[in-house]
Order: sequence, then structure tokens, then C-alpha cells
Amino acid sequence: MRYLLKTLLISISLIIGFSGYGQKTLNLKDFDIQKYKDVTPIVVKALKKCKEEGVSKLVFPKGTYHFYPTFAPEKYCEITNNDNGLKRTAFPIIDFNDFVIDGNGSDFIFHGKMIPFIIEESKNITVTNLSIDWKTPFVIEGLVVAIDSKSETFDIKVETPYVVKFNRLYLSLEREDSPYEQRYGKRFATWEHYNLEVGQNIFWDPKTMAPLYNTKQYSMPEIGVKAKELEKGLIRISTKMKKLPPIGSVMVSKGEYLQNRTSPAFRVFKSKDLEFKNVNVHHAGAMGLIAERSENITLNSFNVVLKKGSKRMITTTADATHFCNVKGTVTIKNCIFENMLDDATNIHGTYVRVNKIINDYTLAIETYHPHQNGYLFGEKGDIVQIIDQKNLLPTTQPMILKKVERINEKISYITFNKPITNKVNIYDGVENISWHASAVLENNIVRNNRARSFLISTPRKVVVRKNHLSSQMATFRITGDLGLWNESGPCDDLLIEDNLIEDSVYGGNRPQSIFLIDPQYRDKNDFKGKYSRKITIRNNTIKTFDSSILLAMSVDELIFENNKIIQTDTYKPIFPHIENVRIINCNNAIIQGNTYQRLDGRKGSILIDKKTTNIKVSKRSAFEDVSSK
Amino acid sequence: MRYLLKTLLISISLIIGFSGYGQKTLNLKDFDIQKYKDVTPIVVKALKKCKEEGVSKLVFPKGTYHFYPTFAPEKYCEITNNDNGLKRTAFPIIDFNDFVIDGNGSDFIFHGKMIPFIIEESKNITVTNLSIDWKTPFVIEGLVVAIDSKSETFDIKVETPYVVKFNRLYLSLEREDSPYEQRYGKRFATWEHYNLEVGQNIFWDPKTMAPLYNTKQYSMPEIGVKAKELEKGLIRISTKMKKLPPIGSVMVSKGEYLQNRTSPAFRVFKSKDLEFKNVNVHHAGAMGLIAERSENITLNSFNVVLKKGSKRMITTTADATHFCNVKGTVTIKNCIFENMLDDATNIHGTYVRVNKIINDYTLAIETYHPHQNGYLFGEKGDIVQIIDQKNLLPTTQPMILKKVERINEKISYITFNKPITNKVNIYDGVENISWHASAVLENNIVRNNRARSFLISTPRKVVVRKNHLSSQMATFRITGDLGLWNESGPCDDLLIEDNLIEDSVYGGNRPQSIFLIDPQYRDKNDFKGKYSRKITIRNNTIKTFDSSILLAMSVDELIFENNKIIQTDTYKPIFPHIENVRIINCNNAIIQGNTYQRLDGRKGSILIDKKTTNIKVSKRSAFEDVSSK
Repeated sequence: MRYLLKTLLISISLIIGFSGYGQKTLNLKDFDIQKYKDVTPIVVKALKKCKEEGVSKLVFPKGTYHFYPTFAPEKYCEITNNDNGLKRTAFPIIDFNDFVIDGNGSDFIFHGKMIPFIIEESKNITVTNLSIDWKTPFVIEGLVVAIDSKSETFDIKVETPYVVKFNRLYLSLEREDSPYEQRYGKRFATWEHYNLEVGQNIFWDPKTMAPLYNTKQYSMPEIGVKAKELEKGLIRISTKMKKLPPIGSVMVSKGEYLQNRTSPAFRVFKSKDLEFKNVNVHHAGAMGLIAERSENITLNSFNVVLKKGSKRMITTTADATHFCNVKGTVTIKNCIFENMLDDATNIHGTYVRVNKIINDYTLAIETYHPHQNGYLFGEKGDIVQIIDQKNLLPTTQPMILKKVERINEKISYITFNKPITNKVNIYDGVENISWHASAVLENNIVRNNRARSFLISTPRKVVVRKNHLSSQMATFRITGDLGLWNESGPCDDLLIEDNLIEDSVYGGNRPQSIFLIDPQYRDKNDFKGKYSRKITIRNNTIKTFDSSILLAMSVDELIFENNKIIQTDTYKPIFPHIENVRIINCNNAIIQGNTYQRLDGRKGSILIDKKTTNIKVSKRSAFEDVSSK
Repeated sequence: MRYLLKTLLISISLIIGFSGYGQKTLNLKDFDIQKYKDVTPIVVKALKKCKEEGVSKLVFPKGTYHFYPTFAPEKYCEITNNDNGLKRTAFPIIDFNDFVIDGNGSDFIFHGKMIPFIIEESKNITVTNLSIDWKTPFVIEGLVVAIDSKSETFDIKVETPYVVKFNRLYLSLEREDSPYEQRYGKRFATWEHYNLEVGQNIFWDPKTMAPLYNTKQYSMPEIGVKAKELEKGLIRISTKMKKLPPIGSVMVSKGEYLQNRTSPAFRVFKSKDLEFKNVNVHHAGAMGLIAERSENITLNSFNVVLKKGSKRMITTTADATHFCNVKGTVTIKNCIFENMLDDATNIHGTYVRVNKIINDYTLAIETYHPHQNGYLFGEKGDIVQIIDQKNLLPTTQPMILKKVERINEKISYITFNKPITNKVNIYDGVENISWHASAVLENNIVRNNRARSFLISTPRKVVVRKNHLSSQMATFRITGDLGLWNESGPCDDLLIEDNLIEDSVYGGNRPQSIFLIDPQYRDKNDFKGKYSRKITIRNNTIKTFDSSILLAMSVDELIFENNKIIQTDTYKPIFPHIENVRIINCNNAIIQGNTYQRLDGRKGSILIDKKTTNIKVSKRSAFEDVSSK
């Protein structure tokens, strides 16, 4: 091995090939990469060489490669909506330009806590033709083989690594291989967060390969679930639940909160013009791709999918993809997103909150959710505005950030070019309007995931077209809040058309709807103004078993037209008494040309609240106005 | 408040006074520091000014000051033997020279997770006349008010902040004050490690203010202790213990391992010529002072002591002081160290371990214990040697580090100036012999702490003189290991004289001894060579209830003479059958002129093993040779 490394160092400078018009290519075949058990150091060295010598393409010979964290470089990363920390990576794509990584159809298998790709401060990068998987999953999966309603216990059969101790069940992550690990690693695994107590549990149905219908009734506490190992691989769980899970269902847990989003597959930060093409993410211990403070990102056949024959139920333990503080255009096309423990995508900004008013020009702002510690809200030159905490509306004109001074991972001081005197209160939000993305989401499939298909919160033009969507909660959520997550901003040109939506909202959570447009006001009975504008939902085919199809709150210019809605009998409705369409505090709304085939043969219902103005519901509407009832 | 800040900014540049011969002084009185609820930002700004304007002294008007973390700057710190992480600080003394901080007798009260002083890359720094305390302690203290041996439970009365949930007891740390905290902080406190599950428990005796006699028999598991809140402040604990704690004792817990050493009072790194004088550390959520990779440190009346009238039982949750990878001279004089949850001091280096042999000149080395993640073992130019994992002896001559490349917090590549071919095996240690300290420990008091008084592992000259020592485990531990902690190096000129030692080793742990000189061999029955040299223990007065006084293993040139030993009846001996003096594998040993007053009137016993050579036990020895028995 040491001679191989030596040889590598000598030969690496000789074997950079030229392909095409002066583009240098480095093929890892020439480094005998296939001979190594752990290819991390080889790839890291190759990348260094690529950068130093201006190589524009790194190619893998087709094969299966294992990446271990032991010799991986690391970086302290603050990753919004994921867990911060010192992260090991095999692909430190930091400060690269005009660079292609071509896996040539290879399978990349990762071991332990790693972020396969960290892409930062880079431009014009393509990652293509590879798949990402982990040897040991970041979830525990246990088949329910027995239940006992008398003792309120159920038994699970577990094939994924686990530990039972202290009367608790822990999923057990793979640790790096080192002398320390071999001798002492297991002793500290719990405190080092490699044994994660089961928490954030959910039950899956192997027949549908999706979360159980009415999942919510099987909720378990996040800490304190009692466990006893009956025999190797057979564990008795004892806990308080509304309803015991059915035999044959699968208990899934990703472990402790704030420890179960350590390892996204792709971390993108401060980068521009990126393409991910023909990439399969079979698993990740966080999101599939999280892009932050970046510009122009294209996912083309970037699939978050189960590996065939893997027997696993879960792909990513969080969202398949997620874009925060991104500008330019996000393009997602020809992708399949399945079996995630969270949404297919979420495109949004993040409001920061006013912690303190320092003077007429300067605020101390804080990031709010622990998953936003260290969040880079803005930089000098960005255009921002203050958002009223009650009505979620701007209280200022757009202003320019003159100065941003980070104090710590929670607090920054930001200074504006204009005075904010009397325009701001403690707890108000600040929105960065420079960093919102346009988006095209086309020809994608979403299925069998916990949570939503698409969350879209951006005032730039967004088109969602020809997707086939089925998710456990709302298919679309269009929201914004100055609560816990502080997701900005409002939509202001959103077209949702020609999609096929099949049996979403089966999780039993509320409030849900196929189209859930619900800015989260502090007081649901006392707010004013419109949050979003120009939302058009047309020509979609919506097959759904439950009642709620559209909840639109505080939209100016809403069009809901020519949708073909068919009630299915896939499941029994969970919320049968909710009106099919609810229009709350909207203005300039048009509801027309929709059809609705209800199982009971009756017309659909539409509720229009008193705050709504200038609404046109066509006479031949599929929906009968029930507002007065 | 905002106007005060503004005024401060203007005035700060005007009011730098001159005292003495051109030395600039900045007195915080002129900033109305006494008016602020949270002085952290004021102090941080003042320090910035001091650096920019070459101020050499920062003075506090005498008073009580509160330091909050909310607006504190932060730094990612890797602190050996403590917990790494992003650390907030009020005194970022980074890159300072010739600087004095004079508290003028002030009390500094810290809130939440902070490191009061981070001193890095600085030279000639004095910190004086101040005390450090925390509003909310990093421990839970619960008075045992009832026990029930039938149900194996006991009840504790708790006045420190706590939470009972999930049938567990958590100590509750103070969180920063912010809108987020007010609204959501408590919801995530457990996952954010502000609620720490009781673990690392120990029972204290309020009568002696020290750990209970034979503490070990009251050991509790580190996780999984069941708890039920009977009424506010009264908690029933149910767990497996060898013996239930006595009524009137106090259960102390610092919470989960790897989360209970976040907040030392002083972090010192890469600094030189430091003095800490008239400083009281009343509490800290880790060590009182941890100095690393630094040179010449003097503690003069640096006291880790309970605050009078505080009702607390615990000062620091780890060692009072700790010096690792320090060179020059460590001087500790006129200090009191009491009621720590760990040692009074530990002066040592840390062996790194060979993870992989890269080539004839280069090794991949790893740090071992999780508390050594990111440990800076050495830099280019340091002199090091390889240590055999079995016998703990050098296998090479001293070599120069030509290159050090950090790969991640565990692994570095180090390159030597000479080949190491055939001189090294995987798992061997590497010792940095450039960074060992001389030390003078004089006129100090150690009492009522868990664990040891002094751990000394350095080959430079050390004198320990005129101290008054009483600790729960060994008074002195002189060791070294290539096990879990990897503490280096051997002693090679240690003089322990004129100390008064009173009733140590009452914890019931083994192996203990007043003087415990025990290199930790992998195989206790198969080793060779001498680990340490030139250890002289003389003219000490040793009052001890238990049997073991000296265990000396693998010492060349051991002198144990003119010590006055008196057996007390303070406690019943825990290990009465251990020989009073045990000499194992020593050479050139002299045992003479000691007196030993045993309660049974008999002579003391000395055991000399067969490996020991050239030993002289004076004929009028206090100890009868029992080796043949």
C-alpha cells in the first residue's frame, strides 16, 4: 500500500491526459484506483492535482468504490437545515472552476459520517454518472412481527445495526476504522453520537413502500421509548402510542434530533452554475442535496431512489433536495425522488429575526432554528427589507446592506443604507430579496416520502410542470413564517400546470391540502394584507381520496382552473368534512373550468371567507359555495 | 442602551489614561461599565481598542459584572482534555502582547456555556484580582432525604435547576437570552445539550465537604437512571447500585460524558509567559485552567475554591488546572484547589499513536481519546521519538519533525528527518520531547476533590514542596500509558519533599496509593525496562488511614527517605492487606530513614519484586520485607 501511494505521487503528474480541445482530463484508472480498499485519499490527492494543474475533468473507471472517513479531510461546515460540525469529505470541491467529475456509471459507497461532496466557492461544476450510497444506513428499520395491546408493546425484527442498552434502542452508525475505534470506539459510541437513540419515528408500509396511511396515529415519543432485546435481532418496544402499529409494518427511526442530519450527500455553498446529471443518491444521513447562497443549479436526472434489491425502505433521512438563499434559476427535471423522510424539494429564503435595535441604521439580528445556526443571511450589497412579525408584510422599502458583522453563530449586526427609525420592532423579520431563485420543476416523479412534494417560497418566476406527485402530506406547500423555521419569502409568479397528483395527504397531519397555501400568521384570526401574488394552478389531474384540495390564504391573483379532480377510494377520507376548496383573504381570484368526480356523486364544496374580495367562481364550477352554511 | 453604546464608541478613544512610565491604561469605569446588565460586548470592544491602540492594561472598577453569551464572539476551539466546539468568550485574548487585565477585586459572573478567557497566540499576559463564577452551575446537587432499600430507590431534594422528563433526570443549564430562547429554547434544550441527563454521578458528604468515604460503592450507571418528580424539588431516583447512598449525602452529577467539559474558565493555547495572580475560580463547566502548547505559566494564588456562603459543593467539573504539551516552567504556588470533580493538576504530554506507516520517513498518527480530537501534537522542528507500545520505551533516537500535515481532527501525517524503517509498529506511540515542562508546585492546598492531587508526567525537573494535600484517590500519580489517555512522558527528575499529606485514597478505587508510580503496561506481567528516573520522595508527613503508601514501578533511582508516616483512624482501611510499600521492577532504590506509626503497633511492610535490582532498604527501616511471604 505504501508503495502504491509513492508510485501514485510520482505518476500522478505524468498521466494527465488531453481529450478534446485542450481540455485536460485525469483518469483515475491510471492510478489503479480500483485496487484500493479506501479510495478517499486517492481522490483527495487527485483533486488537489486537478486544481494545481488546471485539469478540467476527473474521470472514474466504471466500478464500485468505497470511501472511508479515516483519511478524509474535514471542514467545519454550517449547513442550513442540516447539522453543523466538522465534516469529513471525499470530494472537497472548494474553489474550483470549470470542472467535471464523471463517475462513468460507478457506485460510490460511503462509510460512516461523511459528506461525499462539499462544493464551495466554485463555478461551472458538473457532477455526473455516479451513484451515492452508504454501507450502513442512518436509519433503523424494524419489521413489526407481533403486537400486544394489553401490555402496549410490539416486537420488531431488525436487520440494520442496532444496540439495546439502558432499556433503550439505539441505531448504530458505522465508525471509522482506526486503532482507537477497534479498542475503545464502542465504549464511547453513545456519547460520540454513533449510537443514536430511536427518535423521530415513523411507520412504513412495505406493501406500498410508503408511510402508513394515517401515519400520525402511530406517533411515538422522541425520547424514552423502552426497549428489550428478546433475542438477537428481535426487540420488544414499549411506549405510549395512540394506536399500536400493524403487524407487517416497518418502524423507521433516524435517531436523535439535531444528530440525524449530519451527512447530506451534496453540500453546495457560495457556488454558481452547477449541474448534477445522472446522479443517483440511494441514501444519505441528511438531505440529498442542500444548496445555499448559490446561483443557477440544474438537476437533470438527479434521482433520490432506493437501490434495487437493497431491501431498504428509506433513501435520505431529510429532504431529497433543498435550496435556501439561492438565486438565478433552480432547474429540476427528469428526476425521481422517493422514500425520503422529508420533502422532495424546498426552495426558500430564511428570514432572520430582530434581536435588538442598535441604532437608526443597525440591527442585531438572530437566526432562529438550531438548524440555522451560522446561517449566512446576507452580505454587503444585498437588498433586504424588514418584515412585520404580525402580518408578514414589508414595513420598509428595499434597502441595501452596507455592513454585515457576524458576532457568533446566532447573532450578526447588519447596517442599512437608510434609517429604519420607527419601522422595526424586536422579533420582526428581515428578508433578503437579492437571494431568491426562479425555478423550473419539470417532468419529475415524487413518491412514497414522508412530508411534502414541493415547498416553494420565492417571489421569482416558478414553473412546475408535468410532474407525477404523491407524498404523505401536502403535495404543494406555499408558505412563509416568522415562527420557528422563518422561511421566506412569498411567491409572486408561480405556475403549477399539467401535473398528475395521486393520493397525497394520507399522513393524517393537519392542516393539509393538495395545494396548501398558508402563510403562518401569529394570530390566525387577526391579520391583514396579501402574502403571495400570482399563483396559477391549471390543467392538473388530481386523484385524491380525501377532501381538502386547495387551501389558499392571502393570495392576490389566484387562478385555479381547468383541473381534473377525481376522488379515489384508495383510502378512507381522514378529514372528510373539510371543504374541498377554501379561499381565505384572497383578492382577484378565479376558480373556473375544473371538474370533480366525487365518489358520492355530489358537487364539490368551496368556502370563501369574508375577507376575500373580487373572486370569480364560474357558474359551471365543480364547487358549490358553502360559505353561508 | 443604544445611546450608551453610541457614546461608548465615541468616548472609548478619548479616555485611555496614562499611568506610570508610558504604559497606557484603559479603565472601564469611564465606560460606565457598572450600568450594563451584560458587560460582554463592552469588554469585547474595550479589548479590541486595547489591541488597536497598544493599551497595556485593562482595569475594572471593583464590582460585580455579569457576562452573557448572547453577544459574545466565538471561536471553534479544540481543547485537549475538554470538549471541543464553537466557544463563546468574553475575553478573546488572541494575539496580545504585554497586557494586564486587572479586575481590582471584582466578581465576574458568567451565564450559560462560555469560556470566560480564551488566551491564544499571546505573550506576557497577566490576569489578576478577579473571581469567576457562574450563575447556574454545570452540576446538579441533590440532598438525599430518604432511601428505600426494598424498592432500591432514594429521594433527593434539588435546589439547582433540573428537569424530569422521559422518566429521566436532567440538570438544566442556563441558556442565552434571545427571542428564540424565550419562545422555543426549552423545546430543544435536551437536543441542544442544555438539559444533560444525569451521568458521571458521585456522592458527596456535606459534613466533610468531600466525596463520601469509599465513594466507589455508590457508583451509578452513566445513562438510564430512572427518575420521578414527587413534588417540585423532590425527586425519586431508581437505579442499580452496590449500596444506596446514606441520608444526608449529596448526589452530584455533571451530566452526559463529552458534554460536561464545555466551559473551562481559562483556555490557554500557543502562548508564553503568563501569570495568573489572585484569581478565584468558584466554578467552571470543565477545568479551571487548561494550558496547551504554551510556555512558562505561573499561577500564584490562583484558587479554585467554593464561594463563601454559596451552599455549593462543587467548584470545577473537571481538573482545577491542567498543562499539556507545555514547556518552560509551570509554577503553581500559594494556591488552594478544593472540591473539584477531578484532579488539582496534571502536567503531561500526550503520545499520539501510529495509525499507518506511510513510508520510511512518514507516519500517519492519530489522537486517541475523544477529548484529544484536534490535539496539536507537534509542529515542524519539534524533537520527537517513537515509543514501543509494549514497554513504553523509545525505539528510536530523538528525531526532528520535518513536516506535519493535519488531515483531520484524528489523523495527521508526520515526517521525520531520519528513517524509521523497522523501528516502528502500528499502535506504537510518538512522544514530543520538545514540549515537556519543568514545574515548581509549592505551598498549595488541595482538598475535598474527587480524584488525585497531582499527576506529573514530564522528564524535566519538577519540585513539589510544602503542599498540604488531601484527595480522594492517590495524592500523587506518576504514570504514562499507551492505552486510552496516552499521557506522556516519564518523569526524570522529580523531587517531592516537605509536604503534609492527610487522608487521601478514601475513594475505594484501585489501584491507589499515596504515591502511585505505575506506568500502565499493556501486559502487567510481561514488560521490561525502566519507565521513569530519579524520583525522590523525602521529608514528607503522611497521615493516612489505609495501607498503601507507595507503589513504585519501573523507576531507576528511587529514593524514599525520612518520611514521617502516621496511620490515622479517620476511616476504616479499605484495602488493609496491600503492602505499605511495593517496589516493582525498580533499580537503584533507597528506602531509608522513614518512620511509620501504625495503629496496630506493628512494623510496616515492604514488597520488593524479583525484577528489582540494587535496592537498599535501611536496617532500621520502618518497613519489614515481606517479599518472600
